[in-house]
Amino acid sequence: MKAEIITIGDELLLGQVIDTNSAWLGQELNRIGARVHHKSTISDSREAILIALREASHRSDVILITGGLGPTKDDITKVTLCDFFDTKLVLNQKVLDWVQSIFNNRNLPMLESNNQQAMVPENCEVLWNKNGTAPGMWFYENGKAFISMPGVPFEMKTIFIEEAIPKLKHHFSFPSILHRTIQTIGIGESFLAKKIAHIEDELPDHIKLAYLPAVGSVRLRFSAYGQNIQALEEELNPIIANLYSEIGQHIFGEGEDSISEIVGNLLRKKNATLSTAESCTGGFIAHQLTSIPGSSDYFIGSVISYDNRIKINELGVGKNIIEKEGAVSEACVMAMAAGIRLKYNTTYAIATSGIAGPGGGTEAKPVGTVWISIATPDNVFARVYHMGDNRERTIQRTALTALEMLRKELLN
Amino acid sequence: MKAEIITIGDELLLGQVIDTNSAWLGQELNRIGARVHHKSTISDSREAILIALREASHRSDVILITGGLGPTKDDITKVTLCDFFDTKLVLNQKVLDWVQSIFNNRNLPMLESNNQQAMVPENCEVLWNKNGTAPGMWFYENGKAFISMPGVPFEMKTIFIEEAIPKLKHHFSFPSILHRTIQTIGIGESFLAKKIAHIEDELPDHIKLAYLPAVGSVRLRFSAYGQNIQALEEELNPIIANLYSEIGQHIFGEGEDSISEIVGNLLRKKNATLSTAESCTGGFIAHQLTSIPGSSDYFIGSVISYDNRIKINELGVGKNIIEKEGAVSEACVMAMAAGIRLKYNTTYAIATSGIAGPGGGTEAKPVGTVWISIATPDNVFARVYHMGDNRERTIQRTALTALEMLRKELLN
Repeated sequence: MKAEIITIGDELLLGQVIDTNSAWLGQELNRIGARVHHKSTISDSREAILIALREASHRSDVILITGGLGPTKDDITKVTLCDFFDTKLVLNQKVLDWVQSIFNNRNLPMLESNNQQAMVPENCEVLWNKNGTAPGMWFYENGKAFISMPGVPFEMKTIFIEEAIPKLKHHFSFPSILHRTIQTIGIGESFLAKKIAHIEDELPDHIKLAYLPAVGSVRLRFSAYGQNIQALEEELNPIIANLYSEIGQHIFGEGEDSISEIVGNLLRKKNATLSTAESCTGGFIAHQLTSIPGSSDYFIGSVISYDNRIKINELGVGKNIIEKEGAVSEACVMAMAAGIRLKYNTTYAIATSGIAGPGGGTEAKPVGTVWISIATPDNVFARVYHMGDNRERTIQRTALTALEMLRKELLN
Repeated sequence: MKAEIITIGDELLLGQVIDTNSAWLGQELNRIGARVHHKSTISDSREAILIALREASHRSDVILITGGLGPTKDDITKVTLCDFFDTKLVLNQKVLDWVQSIFNNRNLPMLESNNQQAMVPENCEVLWNKNGTAPGMWFYENGKAFISMPGVPFEMKTIFIEEAIPKLKHHFSFPSILHRTIQTIGIGESFLAKKIAHIEDELPDHIKLAYLPAVGSVRLRFSAYGQNIQALEEELNPIIANLYSEIGQHIFGEGEDSISEIVGNLLRKKNATLSTAESCTGGFIAHQLTSIPGSSDYFIGSVISYDNRIKINELGVGKNIIEKEGAVSEACVMAMAAGIRLKYNTTYAIATSGIAGPGGGTEAKPVGTVWISIATPDNVFARVYHMGDNRERTIQRTALTALEMLRKELLN
């Protein structure tokens, strides 16, 4: 069964709104074993919509359409659907009563444009929109389903889950599909690809591998298609096991968990606490950690020692270290980590000091030079990295690398 | 001139990655007076790419293609472009030298797959990728331009701005277009729209107003199309003046400057320094400030007092305040601001304490309750806000609001 998505709206083409609906729909369809093989975004114009519907009906069995169902004048999807199916709008009394009840409850007057929302193409079945006034619509012709939904995300999502999916499952049969995502860090996409080339080459046709690179990390996604989930699992397990034996030291997790979630869970398991002393990351590591709900269980706090005076007065870094070796040095970052761990009385501590740039680089310490230190109950160690010359990415890579250094330590 | 965007990648169809590239490209093209009338997303498959290129070449004059240029197996855009243009891959020595220099600088060995990145279709001009190893490509045939760029956002953006736009301007004629962006804060899109409805209604047809909402702020972008930039300016000025008299108190800046840049510039002008004491924002304000190059001129540092013990021991918040009024209280956040200002000896200080959620809410202090305090050389004050029930947005809104409170103070 081939599915595709058509999103309608000038605001999407202009980039005023980022289309998150189609990504969500892609995930949900994938979850039930349907594959989205095409997405298109078009303007609120009759011609554009007609052409898109025609092309989609040749390409796909299930066509999902979002947007263009509001009461405002540039929303013309509904009448264009009538043209496409050669039918006319008729009043749906149930929808009209519903729309009226909504306005009554809010003590708002009904506008003519709101009555219009109860008009639907004669050949459609209404998909109930319990969160809004614009009904979803289901069309089924010659073995193909067209599903039109409003663009408002929370309205669309409820309609799709509660109304559309049951109908889809009734009209189409879905294969089983199994995904496993392996998260790697500290190795570039091309090196990763080379290291696991033999695994990739031996994959059967019904198992696909995708590389999803982000700043500092690469996710590997295996997708297995078949009839029986358990059989797919048994097929995938040894492949993943192979992967671990090949690049295990670069794997920091599976699924979608971020490294700060993974580190947080390890700290919680150990009843351990964490503090950070951040210079070049400027609070980004603390932000990553505190973005996770419940992080107050293990994260105590930080000193952002942007100015050297704070490194000296608050973290106990020796004046002589700053003067002789500089703030971006092994001695300084280790003193920072030991200092914050002692001061905030935590089990572990992370410290960073580097030159994020664009300014401040020297021959000996070019922009992108970063020292990271981890302090544990019985050890303090540090490593130097070269994160490149982009300030934002250096901050992100440093945070990721520091959390990975701590994760490895927590596993020992 | 009609433009369209093709994004390539199974991860986009599966919804594992949200496509922000095409929204960004839509905005940038709009900025130079070009209109995106179609977007499509397709899988990493030869057939799909060929069909998409064929359809696009009938529909549009400029076709932007992102994705599928990495070194790994699932990236087949480049060879498919050869098929489409009926040409072959040839070695580009300049690119090869560049790729090699990157690997040399990082002391990494070159892989065959990296050499492959220097192979480009014979009929293309290389668009230099100074941020990565995959070159962009420019094809120009029968008055139509095809621009292929990597999917990694920061690589794509630089290639498009620095390499592609000049070529586009050389081959196509664009109308004169004048943009002015007004940045507002603390007022929702619909209320904003209502307040300035009369201004919007009186806009002539050649001046468009777009609402670009983000978390906690809305940018208003006026786009004036015509022949003469100066005439457009003279036409736009009184309209903007009107806007200021209508919603001036909500305007924090013009153009694209972030509020942390604006606040930073004000601090620098005053030779003033800043520190932060962050609880619910967990370092996000410090991160926002230190994302700006040169922020070490005015930003001294922070205490992230996630645990109450840190509020008491490091910021001098009275135990009794925590016990009687709680950490999320006016008294606590004012003590935090005064405490960090004194301790870090800065001109100004920001403090935050709130319930980001999802847990921790009470009847009296529901999730989203946030206290923000500003300490100045002669005053400490605080305000309470209700930021809603989404953790991430509460953190972002709180940072934005705190920086806006400081900005207003710096202007007094």
